[in-house]
Amino acid sequence: MRKTARLLIACPDARGIVAAVASFIADNGGNLLDADQHTDKDHGEFFMRAAIEREGFGLGPETFAAAWEPVARRFGMAWSVFWGLPVKRMGILVGRQSHCLTDLLWRHKSGELDVEIPLIVSNHADLGDLAADAGIAFEVCPVGPDTKPQQEKRVLGLLSDARVDFVVLARYMQILSSEFVSHYPMRIINIHHSFLPAFAGGSPYKQAYDRGVKMIGATSHYVTDDLDAGPIIAQDTVTTSHRDTVDDLIRKGRDLERIVLARAVHLHVDDKILVSQNKTVVFD
Amino acid sequence: MRKTARLLIACPDARGIVAAVASFIADNGGNLLDADQHTDKDHGEFFMRAAIEREGFGLGPETFAAAWEPVARRFGMAWSVFWGLPVKRMGILVGRQSHCLTDLLWRHKSGELDVEIPLIVSNHADLGDLAADAGIAFEVCPVGPDTKPQQEKRVLGLLSDARVDFVVLARYMQILSSEFVSHYPMRIINIHHSFLPAFAGGSPYKQAYDRGVKMIGATSHYVTDDLDAGPIIAQDTVTTSHRDTVDDLIRKGRDLERIVLARAVHLHVDDKILVSQNKTVVFD
Amino acid sequence: MRKTARLLIACPDARGIVAAVASFIADNGGNLLDADQHTDKDHGEFFMRAAIEREGFGLGPETFAAAWEPVARRFGMAWSVFWGLPVKRMGILVGRQSHCLTDLLWRHKSGELDVEIPLIVSNHADLGDLAADAGIAFEVCPVGPDTKPQQEKRVLGLLSDARVDFVVLARYMQILSSEFVSHYPMRIINIHHSFLPAFAGGSPYKQAYDRGVKMIGATSHYVTDDLDAGPIIAQDTVTTSHRDTVDDLIRKGRDLERIVLARAVHLHVDDKILVSQNKTVVFD
Amino acid sequence: MRKTARLLIACPDARGIVAAVASFIADNGGNLLDADQHTDKDHGEFFMRAAIEREGFGLGPETFAAAWEPVARRFGMAWSVFWGLPVKRMGILVGRQSHCLTDLLWRHKSGELDVEIPLIVSNHADLGDLAADAGIAFEVCPVGPDTKPQQEKRVLGLLSDARVDFVVLARYMQILSSEFVSHYPMRIINIHHSFLPAFAGGSPYKQAYDRGVKMIGATSHYVTDDLDAGPIIAQDTVTTSHRDTVDDLIRKGRDLERIVLARAVHLHVDDKILVSQNKTVVFD
Repeated sequence: MRKTARLLIACPDARGIVAAVASFIADNGGNLLDADQHTDKDHGEFFMRAAIEREGFGLGPETFAAAWEPVARRFGMAWSVFWGLPVKRMGILVGRQSHCLTDLLWRHKSGELDVEIPLIVSNHADLGDLAADAGIAFEVCPVGPDTKPQQEKRVLGLLSDARVDFVVLARYMQILSSEFVSHYPMRIINIHHSFLPAFAGGSPYKQAYDRGVKMIGATSHYVTDDLDAGPIIAQDTVTTSHRDTVDDLIRKGRDLERIVLARAVHLHVDDKILVSQNKTVVFD
Repeated sequence: MRKTARLLIACPDARGIVAAVASFIADNGGNLLDADQHTDKDHGEFFMRAAIEREGFGLGPETFAAAWEPVARRFGMAWSVFWGLPVKRMGILVGRQSHCLTDLLWRHKSGELDVEIPLIVSNHADLGDLAADAGIAFEVCPVGPDTKPQQEKRVLGLLSDARVDFVVLARYMQILSSEFVSHYPMRIINIHHSFLPAFAGGSPYKQAYDRGVKMIGATSHYVTDDLDAGPIIAQDTVTTSHRDTVDDLIRKGRDLERIVLARAVHLHVDDKILVSQNKTVVFD
Repeated sequence: MRKTARLLIACPDARGIVAAVASFIADNGGNLLDADQHTDKDHGEFFMRAAIEREGFGLGPETFAAAWEPVARRFGMAWSVFWGLPVKRMGILVGRQSHCLTDLLWRHKSGELDVEIPLIVSNHADLGDLAADAGIAFEVCPVGPDTKPQQEKRVLGLLSDARVDFVVLARYMQILSSEFVSHYPMRIINIHHSFLPAFAGGSPYKQAYDRGVKMIGATSHYVTDDLDAGPIIAQDTVTTSHRDTVDDLIRKGRDLERIVLARAVHLHVDDKILVSQNKTVVFD
Repeated sequence: MRKTARLLIACPDARGIVAAVASFIADNGGNLLDADQHTDKDHGEFFMRAAIEREGFGLGPETFAAAWEPVARRFGMAWSVFWGLPVKRMGILVGRQSHCLTDLLWRHKSGELDVEIPLIVSNHADLGDLAADAGIAFEVCPVGPDTKPQQEKRVLGLLSDARVDFVVLARYMQILSSEFVSHYPMRIINIHHSFLPAFAGGSPYKQAYDRGVKMIGATSHYVTDDLDAGPIIAQDTVTTSHRDTVDDLIRKGRDLERIVLARAVHLHVDDKILVSQNKTVVFD
């Protein structure tokens, strides 16, 4: 992936966009490795992701914008380009539960997840050992009844000092304020332990148990001001039965959560997600 | 299945229930083909389903109750027994959509679904040909703004005349009154085209589309007074993406609905469902 | 779909292909609704599917080839274009089992499957009523120990007379000769009732039962000379347990087969499949 | 689980077995928490698993066999009883790949997997750090072209010294000899990275890629003399596409492997598996 530049585009739908983009890349010596597009007909919006081989491509981080600007202007594009290097810096917020953090750290260590992880923050000390084993800085920022604003401020400061590009809530059980979220728009990924919009809010496994559902789910989404209502990135479900206690649902759910969270993190890292109208366009 | 009697039991949890039931069956020359049990620890309730080979079993429809009563009394059991013959009589209510009805009729014709289908009722005439091809009586009972009570009365009369044991709503788009439901408690099976409790009520595919979920679901449940809130029997989900329009969701959902509905009907026909506290115990 | 032309391309990988294709379409007033591409790096092959809105597109069935030829020549393309109208003509071969045929006929009748079905052929008379209900010609061509060549000849004649574009084997239990297959290369779709390559050949459910697998599958594929070894189009699986008899597997499998077959037929009808090196590229 | 005794029974099918077992338990003051049964009609064999609450049960490890023997003799039962304490001792054999080991260690540390892990053995040194972090003994036993018998002997010695009850092959890439397997009959659990019987043997992901399948799978099974042909415990599959390279399949497969392996280990630890005729009866 590191040898690939990725160009993300959103603009009003029009004829000739793909031709213009593909020609621009070809004219600059680039090889178009992959191109995905989507038209949202409800809103007349066009979305595109182009993966360009960097070898042979005549443009780079310094020169791309100026060359590209005429094309972007012609179609009224919102766009971003990612060069793959340096890799993204991922901050992790956790509570007391280890399964999502263990999973992310293993994926990182094994080379599957191509990011830097400069920092893990928690409101509890429990998972410090995991961070230490992985050689990653771990900061405890406890939250008291009256200290939430200060705590968020401190967490934001730590994330900023660590030059974090995006934040993963790996079962962080605190609700983030609008102020906090505004620092990382569509760059905070949460895992909610239900099939949203079913069982939003607290204790979703208990809610699922009480309702007697025959499947449980997990949902990863970008965090917005609306609790558990941000754009959904990935979901999955698993079968349950009347024999499953709440503890069984929690145990089954853990396997689901870490896989659904990892899928969302991968998609974000590979710049495969565009957001529009509180929905994601996922080019996987 | 026809050669098998099925005994369903619910009672307060206690020691020795299985021993008492199994001994009773053995003492009467019965072969216990299958025995499933479940204890709801939250409410101290015990559930059991016993399948007894009829060949060699010394008891039958006329003699069972008297012999069994002492055991039932000892443990305070609510119980029912099903002898497999005559087969259950299934009434079907439909609207305009054919997929669930086509599916049920095919399963019936192929011998997979061991029921009699004496009657199909609809508020529209559209699916009359399907019923005619299958040689099943089809009655149209239209619903107008002010004629709902009369229509329900007429439908109830038709179901009663046809000596229907249970009712399947194969995409019948009318809400049934409490009065109607009370005639078939835990004997009306509905298919709701969402993963309940998400997207209860109308237009669930539109709701799912608007929310941008990455999976859609279908739920079969017993109908109670509470709309889409009765005990869930079966659920399933299928993957979707940003490319799916509402029409695509409807199309994908059709395949899900008919399979989830058929699963619920099979379980009901085979007496594999017990209901307690608005949840099902499904012995599959 | 009918208002959309679809262009399928296979050629040696090179720079500038997408630019050339997209520019060609734009230069001729076409709107590129959808474009999918894939590069097989093992063999240096490039594949593309472009969906072009016909409204406004300056080229049509008569004029496209001449205009397009220079582009095709430049990149050494193998290509085909489908105009959506007239719709494809689908012939169906069946044996005695009704589930796949019932399913295809329902999808056709409901408008989901945009094809003409001029002919159903079987080596048994059993399913004639289904064809009659659907108003489709039904021909019985029995196969005896020595009459296979003649029977195939007759079937080929019927398919040819009915101007069939492609053939669906909806549980047709006869092995087709190379000669037969050669008339419809990559245009005969089979459903095999196992997760290929496991349990190729006869009685796959019995094989699965004997092996004690915990899931069964179904596989749709194009038919080639090699029995059950043609390019796979779609597969799916479902959970089983030690309680499932061979008959249970057959019953569960039927639900799987018809859905996997329908998925393959849809993909073929929408020109979403390219074949290379005995594998499919599926642009879904 | 620790407060529960589990009784596993296999015997020729007969009337009255459940009554005899349940009465025996009740007569000795035991509470039958769960009872599962299965009859293999092909071979006339009956299987049962009974979970008995230890509190109040008048029998224990020293006294059970003598009291039970008459019942067992009456029905010709093969049986075993597990008292939950001390917990089972699980030995792990690994190669170079970390995902299954990481997963098992996390499940152990989190309390989900109720076993002792006295020993991890590998033919490579790579995963020693993981073992060290978990505080578990790690032994390297390299295999050379001529040293396989000696190496197996040494591994057997280590497992024996560690008083291991069963062995998990967490991606151990060596084929075990019949001699080795005979020391742990139906007590060695392997994870094979394909949907067996498809792609048995080496490089299953490469085989799957070459065949162009649309799903890959993973299979956990008991190890027997026949390579990849032992009784299957659990299987699962995941969707793939033409875009997936062999490396993608390997990456997707890792998530599948660890979940399928964990499921099998859980079932074994909870004494929920009986084996007969090279198939498993799984009481889950």
